[in-house]
Amino acid sequence: MTRSRVGIVGLGAWGTALAALLARAGHQVCAWTTEAPVLDELRANHTNSKYLPGISLPDSLRATEDAATALAGADFLVWAIPVQVLREVTSRLAPHVAPESVQVSVAKGLELGTHERPSRILQSCLPGRRLAALLGPSHAEEVARGVPTSVAACAEDGDAAEAVQRLFHGDRFRVYTNSDLAGAEYATAHKNEIALAAGIGDGLGFGDNTKGALMARGLAEMSRLGVALGGRQETFFGLTGLGDLVTTSFSRHSRNRHVGEQIGRGRDLQAVLCEMTQVAEGVATSRAALELARSRRVDVPIIEQVVAILHEGKPPRDALLDLLTRDPRPE
Amino acid sequence: MTRSRVGIVGLGAWGTALAALLARAGHQVCAWTTEAPVLDELRANHTNSKYLPGISLPDSLRATEDAATALAGADFLVWAIPVQVLREVTSRLAPHVAPESVQVSVAKGLELGTHERPSRILQSCLPGRRLAALLGPSHAEEVARGVPTSVAACAEDGDAAEAVQRLFHGDRFRVYTNSDLAGAEYATAHKNEIALAAGIGDGLGFGDNTKGALMARGLAEMSRLGVALGGRQETFFGLTGLGDLVTTSFSRHSRNRHVGEQIGRGRDLQAVLCEMTQVAEGVATSRAALELARSRRVDVPIIEQVVAILHEGKPPRDALLDLLTRDPRPE
Repeated sequence: MTRSRVGIVGLGAWGTALAALLARAGHQVCAWTTEAPVLDELRANHTNSKYLPGISLPDSLRATEDAATALAGADFLVWAIPVQVLREVTSRLAPHVAPESVQVSVAKGLELGTHERPSRILQSCLPGRRLAALLGPSHAEEVARGVPTSVAACAEDGDAAEAVQRLFHGDRFRVYTNSDLAGAEYATAHKNEIALAAGIGDGLGFGDNTKGALMARGLAEMSRLGVALGGRQETFFGLTGLGDLVTTSFSRHSRNRHVGEQIGRGRDLQAVLCEMTQVAEGVATSRAALELARSRRVDVPIIEQVVAILHEGKPPRDALLDLLTRDPRPE
Repeated sequence: MTRSRVGIVGLGAWGTALAALLARAGHQVCAWTTEAPVLDELRANHTNSKYLPGISLPDSLRATEDAATALAGADFLVWAIPVQVLREVTSRLAPHVAPESVQVSVAKGLELGTHERPSRILQSCLPGRRLAALLGPSHAEEVARGVPTSVAACAEDGDAAEAVQRLFHGDRFRVYTNSDLAGAEYATAHKNEIALAAGIGDGLGFGDNTKGALMARGLAEMSRLGVALGGRQETFFGLTGLGDLVTTSFSRHSRNRHVGEQIGRGRDLQAVLCEMTQVAEGVATSRAALELARSRRVDVPIIEQVVAILHEGKPPRDALLDLLTRDPRPE
């Protein structure tokens, strides 16, 4: 195995889990964060109890608040920060990014206002750098515990996808490649709105039958929208589409499903969001998704109802029953 | 609404739930079973505690052991018995089946030996009768409790599909139509083998990431096989494919997932099956599925490992890790 130098931007749950995975595999990993308590704890105890409680991190994982130290000389940079701050942070750190380094995008969702995908933000802030997105059904907590996981390294540039595949691939973390970067990023973003709807159903006390129907109709909706935006249909039936959708919609680890469940139980959105240490991307992304769908004249009934519930005060039960009581017709 | 006369063949969980649904909607429903204790309890208490515990059944639901009484004069007959006994029972009851009655197939799986689908068995035993299959993500327990459910009435004969749609459609039980009967029945059968694999993963302590990957790769496998057998690709991404697959693979009500989980924990297959009051179709169907796949030269790695675990004594952990450790490659 080639030992690589890897910089990790962000020490949330996912950044920390990937940093630990690579450090354990023998790579030289340095993470960057501006959160002083996270840094102090990582250095003192080799844990990150705010974002990844209960996990011992490898001693070899280093961390710093100094961007030059973390980024300079890295072969790979993993951008593990929320999409809504990705442009600002990347612009700020760009001067430290080596021209030859491969960028690994692991952010999910779309940027508000521009509706832009994470990899496009990285490309515009770091022009000319090689890039792949690592996406798929991968809750950080489970990856950190060694649960068997399969993901896709997605890039139009096949060499970049294979380089990222080689970097991350291991016995319990299987990495496939996929050349449909746009489809994978749209699938990853829009599954969050469907997972919110699934969580709302859970909160209302609906069952597995309801969720099965939501998955089938949600995936159809995601793929209609994603194909209209330039993705390929088959990506929606793969790891980054269906795989990520069902994991997010059923897992107790899923933040979007959790927010939906609380809303379904009648709680207030702001109160729920205030309790969370991490971002539920779908809450913000749902509006962008609806705007995108309308601009392309794509029918997205589930996303419409999710936006109505979250942002327009529509009672969750009415919204879900509106979805279910459309006229009977061919599937 | 037209009030129809409906005969239900079989009072297992699904037959009972559908009988109750139709009786509550005002149809004249008579069920047939040879299980004397079930009949006695239904008449005395309006319950079926063996198959559908905790559910009060409508007073208007009648039941009998006399086939002529249950079947003669019915507008619709619902065949709610396991596929492995469907041919024998249907042949025996055929003399009582009115020529004009519409047959509703709700059996799941394939017949051992012949590899035949339920609707084809009904067609061969009841030649010339109109027929549709009612399939999709629909655990009997949830339907009986009024959980919102969506299913598909599947038939090459559009009039039969629409007649069955009109019979069953209601606020909490939405019925779509699908003209791909073969695809829907193959999807319904083969999802059980994938759900067994998902359950085995649960029993081994694997997580949601593992299951998400299994869903994506399992659906690809199901659709490869189903399309080779004459089904249409899009059916596998709809209610009877993806919808039923995820419901079966995640639900605590699923018998196939449950059997898989017990096997994953190291228990003996025969011991697990002996404890169950109902059939886990996938255990028997997995062999038929593998034979079918081999005869069509379709690659079905998940079904192969499920057969190796259930019928050839392969340790579950080795089998699942064999699946996960195939060489990394494009998705």
